[in-house]
Amino acid sequence: MDPSITIFGDWGSSRLRLYLRQGKSVLDRRDGPGIGALRSSPERTFLDLVGDWREARPAGAMLCGVVGSRMGWVEAPYAPCPGRANDLRERILTIEAEGLPVSIIPGLSCINPLGSPDVMRGEETQILGALALDPALRHGRHLLVLPGTHCKWTLVEDGAVVRFLTAPVGETFALLRQYSSLAAGVAAEVQGSQAGFAMGLARIIEHGPALLPHLLFETRSRQLLESLPPDDAMGFLSGLLIGADAAAARTWFGDLVQVTLVGAPGLNRFYGQAIASLGGQTTAIDGEAAVLAGLTTLSFPKNNDFHVLA
Amino acid sequence: MDPSITIFGDWGSSRLRLYLRQGKSVLDRRDGPGIGALRSSPERTFLDLVGDWREARPAGAMLCGVVGSRMGWVEAPYAPCPGRANDLRERILTIEAEGLPVSIIPGLSCINPLGSPDVMRGEETQILGALALDPALRHGRHLLVLPGTHCKWTLVEDGAVVRFLTAPVGETFALLRQYSSLAAGVAAEVQGSQAGFAMGLARIIEHGPALLPHLLFETRSRQLLESLPPDDAMGFLSGLLIGADAAAARTWFGDLVQVTLVGAPGLNRFYGQAIASLGGQTTAIDGEAAVLAGLTTLSFPKNNDFHVLA
Repeated sequence: MDPSITIFGDWGSSRLRLYLRQGKSVLDRRDGPGIGALRSSPERTFLDLVGDWREARPAGAMLCGVVGSRMGWVEAPYAPCPGRANDLRERILTIEAEGLPVSIIPGLSCINPLGSPDVMRGEETQILGALALDPALRHGRHLLVLPGTHCKWTLVEDGAVVRFLTAPVGETFALLRQYSSLAAGVAAEVQGSQAGFAMGLARIIEHGPALLPHLLFETRSRQLLESLPPDDAMGFLSGLLIGADAAAARTWFGDLVQVTLVGAPGLNRFYGQAIASLGGQTTAIDGEAAVLAGLTTLSFPKNNDFHVLA
Repeated sequence: MDPSITIFGDWGSSRLRLYLRQGKSVLDRRDGPGIGALRSSPERTFLDLVGDWREARPAGAMLCGVVGSRMGWVEAPYAPCPGRANDLRERILTIEAEGLPVSIIPGLSCINPLGSPDVMRGEETQILGALALDPALRHGRHLLVLPGTHCKWTLVEDGAVVRFLTAPVGETFALLRQYSSLAAGVAAEVQGSQAGFAMGLARIIEHGPALLPHLLFETRSRQLLESLPPDDAMGFLSGLLIGADAAAARTWFGDLVQVTLVGAPGLNRFYGQAIASLGGQTTAIDGEAAVLAGLTTLSFPKNNDFHVLA
């Protein structure tokens, strides 16, 4: 066993991404199926993808994401927040897969600003990573937005997650894009254009996020009656959904003008544009870099002078 | 040919319903596939379903709905509204299918209250039918709501459609119900409960329709953390979507306290409950009865002393 070598993994509902890591370097990287698309058990899937990495004799693996949910490999119960310091680390579950120790990171739960129960899995690790990458986030009040399948608006105070609010924006877009009449006849490979995005964003800001269901249909009617090109129409749909999320969530975090985005670069850009249109400012952290930094923080606690729970 | 016998049809994207009609009586009724699920041409599908009804020697057929769209049988261009009287009737397209005259009713287009182009196909016939069934609707200003796949909020003045606003509420519910993580693990046959609907409606009214994307996730988190039963969760989802539509559309038709619902009885009840929670009053007309009354009105213009276009 080589204690300097570890396997890191981000295992969500739609994708598994594994990294073979030595110190601060990524030696190799492999992609596999999400928890929602498994053909064999999570253990088998994981071990098959690890494959010949075992020859490097890794000390263990650490995984975050839906893998720790009831529908995943083993359930790592949510750490409630705000909670005690180190609740997250104490709740890490370690199991064994053919002799390899596998640590599974729990998610966080809270009562969100609307008074609803709310949950995240995977994003807690990205938040931890964002705090590692940008030390200024460890002190004072900060709004972190993690766009994606389920966008998380997260309030962090002095390095601890206080509460968060979820909107299934990416998932709604994907379903409307793939199956709805709004995208009827639009080829699967068509991307949303930047011009279309700006148009959708402007419409939702003009009329307010409450009118989202009614503006959605414009995606279709402008194609029918005004020959709006498909790539503009798909951008328009994205602009409406992201704009509505940003405009409404801001009413709950409105005093926080400065927002840190943690996500894929393309999504960071779209959210940055939406938040700027609403008078906010953003800085962006790459979501993948944040996952790796978060897993590093959890693997090497001695180098960690902050926490994610109050 | 027997001039007293006609075939009526309502052919939408997800369903074809044909009626064999003599005078005011429906002699027989048959269901077939929607325009979105055809296995042969529209003509072949139609003639196969008509089958032995030809022995009754019907004078012709009259069809409304998506059948008249670009993706249907033949395109019957939209009648713009508000427009000239009788625009709708003049734009009926008549074609022939193996010697049987088939009349296809056009839809309506308008610039909606949000300044967007908007369209309907099939609902114009239901509106005509509602005006036939309830003569009080033919004079003064009335708000008609036609819930369904694409809910239509329609302003009628002195018997004419002035403008309308569409929200794809039923379609969004169906996609989230069938494919999303909000309904993960919920069996296909689970119905939304009335108690769940009331809970979702109360939540959206409490926080306002702008927070719809954020309240949607509660459908999932309450199942995960509070063991909300699946039928209550699906009712909750429906309550959020219908409540958000009603609460936002009301801002555009807010002075019209009295609303006429034209739709399936179950949907009429849900929308009635949502509108009542917002201080409105409703009366309901069965959507199928309205289609038949509308097709009758268009078939026998001499008995028709009103119009749907100004």
